[in-house]
Amino acid sequence: MSVIYQRVALIGLGLIAGSMAHAMREQALAGEVTGFARSPETRAVAREIGLCDRICDSAAEAVAGADLVVLAVPVGAMGDVMAEIAPHLAPGATVTDVGSVKQSVIEAVLPHLPQGVHFIPGHPLAGTEHSGPRAGFASLFRNRWWLLTPLPDTDEAALARLDRLVGAMGAKTDRMDPGHHDLVLAVTSHAPHLIAYTMVGVADHLRRVSGEEVIQYSAAGFRDFTRIAASDPTMWRDVFLHNKEATLDILGRFTEELFVLQRAIRMGDGPQLHEYFTRTRAIRRGIIEAGQDTEAPDFGRSPEARPGE
Amino acid sequence: MSVIYQRVALIGLGLIAGSMAHAMREQALAGEVTGFARSPETRAVAREIGLCDRICDSAAEAVAGADLVVLAVPVGAMGDVMAEIAPHLAPGATVTDVGSVKQSVIEAVLPHLPQGVHFIPGHPLAGTEHSGPRAGFASLFRNRWWLLTPLPDTDEAALARLDRLVGAMGAKTDRMDPGHHDLVLAVTSHAPHLIAYTMVGVADHLRRVSGEEVIQYSAAGFRDFTRIAASDPTMWRDVFLHNKEATLDILGRFTEELFVLQRAIRMGDGPQLHEYFTRTRAIRRGIIEAGQDTEAPDFGRSPEARPGE
Repeated sequence: MSVIYQRVALIGLGLIAGSMAHAMREQALAGEVTGFARSPETRAVAREIGLCDRICDSAAEAVAGADLVVLAVPVGAMGDVMAEIAPHLAPGATVTDVGSVKQSVIEAVLPHLPQGVHFIPGHPLAGTEHSGPRAGFASLFRNRWWLLTPLPDTDEAALARLDRLVGAMGAKTDRMDPGHHDLVLAVTSHAPHLIAYTMVGVADHLRRVSGEEVIQYSAAGFRDFTRIAASDPTMWRDVFLHNKEATLDILGRFTEELFVLQRAIRMGDGPQLHEYFTRTRAIRRGIIEAGQDTEAPDFGRSPEARPGE
Repeated sequence: MSVIYQRVALIGLGLIAGSMAHAMREQALAGEVTGFARSPETRAVAREIGLCDRICDSAAEAVAGADLVVLAVPVGAMGDVMAEIAPHLAPGATVTDVGSVKQSVIEAVLPHLPQGVHFIPGHPLAGTEHSGPRAGFASLFRNRWWLLTPLPDTDEAALARLDRLVGAMGAKTDRMDPGHHDLVLAVTSHAPHLIAYTMVGVADHLRRVSGEEVIQYSAAGFRDFTRIAASDPTMWRDVFLHNKEATLDILGRFTEELFVLQRAIRMGDGPQLHEYFTRTRAIRRGIIEAGQDTEAPDFGRSPEARPGE
């Protein structure tokens, strides 16, 4: 691979930015990678593990002379960060973000965008339940989607260049309307996360009654919820507050649907439950066929499992 | 390992019974393993892959002379199966079951139990989203809990012997009151499954609007729900119908809690959301410390991920 950007500035040094640093440096996609995080502890760790070529003590210093600036902070902080770095951006530079919500980020960032700087919103659909500067790894984006939601007047050359970087880090790219992105993600990510947080919260109340049994016997389904519900609290608080309408819409549909199934249980309507559970099974097959998950039972937790043999 | 039972009869040949067959035969824990399933197709597959020493064409034939009979059918079928095999059970034999609900199974089985036959209800907390005679594997129970809910008058020698078999297959055993079991499992397994089924159902409705995007972009959390919601529909229909009270109780608490969080989103109450998400994160740590899941990010789907380095 050849160098795609001369200098990439990472603002925020969590799981996503850290993984970008690893991926770009592994393949020499950037001449230099600079980084900044608001917390001195994060910067210290980033320096200690050599995450970037240079860790700066201000965002202004990090973005100076960069031809790509990546905003990798919680979506609620994007506007303030953009206001802070705007005067220091190089003419012709591209600014992108990696936020899980696109409409509100666009609304927060655009007012501060200087003339001659390109803003191309983006969202890598990749992550783990770990966070912080030590959580990143080079292969995080491999074979994952990285959605770009360009604005109507986006510069095609700038877009193509960002597309190349994303592809070189192993991701598949797609373009989407920002509003549509926020609805699709409310279904595939935001509502599931809130539901997982809720179920884990319920279990926490009961744990105070039933001792440690809820944790001890979590392998029966619950532990998958706890993994989702272990994600970064600040990031997720901001996601829900900034994709409020779509999330509440999906949660409303979810509650209706849950009441239908609860009623079927209460009335003892076996055929309805069976028909429902058969239909949801088909969706799983679609996801495996689309290459979005492994067919290995239990996510391959049991290495000896070989279904169909 | 030495032989613990001379003849073990497996009634029902799905994931759990199949895994027991593999585990017992791998270590020669049973002199002979016989099997029966109601469906001729299942029996044909079981014969084809040599799942048991002998596949019988009737439950009566399978249990004849067995000193251990394992009822491994959906919980709604346990009573009928027990009524059918009762006249053919050997004196002194032990009957156990592997159902996910214990109280209703006990109520269904006990009336048919012949004098001199021991009934020891059980529940292995192990499984994958796959089902059927090909889904089993010998290590399914390794390091997993196998709960026994013995009745007050259970024969201690019979219980100790079953305990030995379960332990020899790699499981950890614990004893529990049947009603308490049903409540704990409603939290750790039954409610999470219903919630996952519901969320996948909601996504299915939306998929008809938004094309295949819900499947395409499922990696952001939703795919974990679809795995849970891909489990056997008949088994789960029966679980909900037979653990109705505890499941509805937990779902009621869940809905209350969800409404509190929905309201926090609607009102823009960031501190409340942040506090909640921080608390649920601690539960995840408890589960990892209890050895009930891996700390590998994303369940180790990303083999290169090494957090904390």
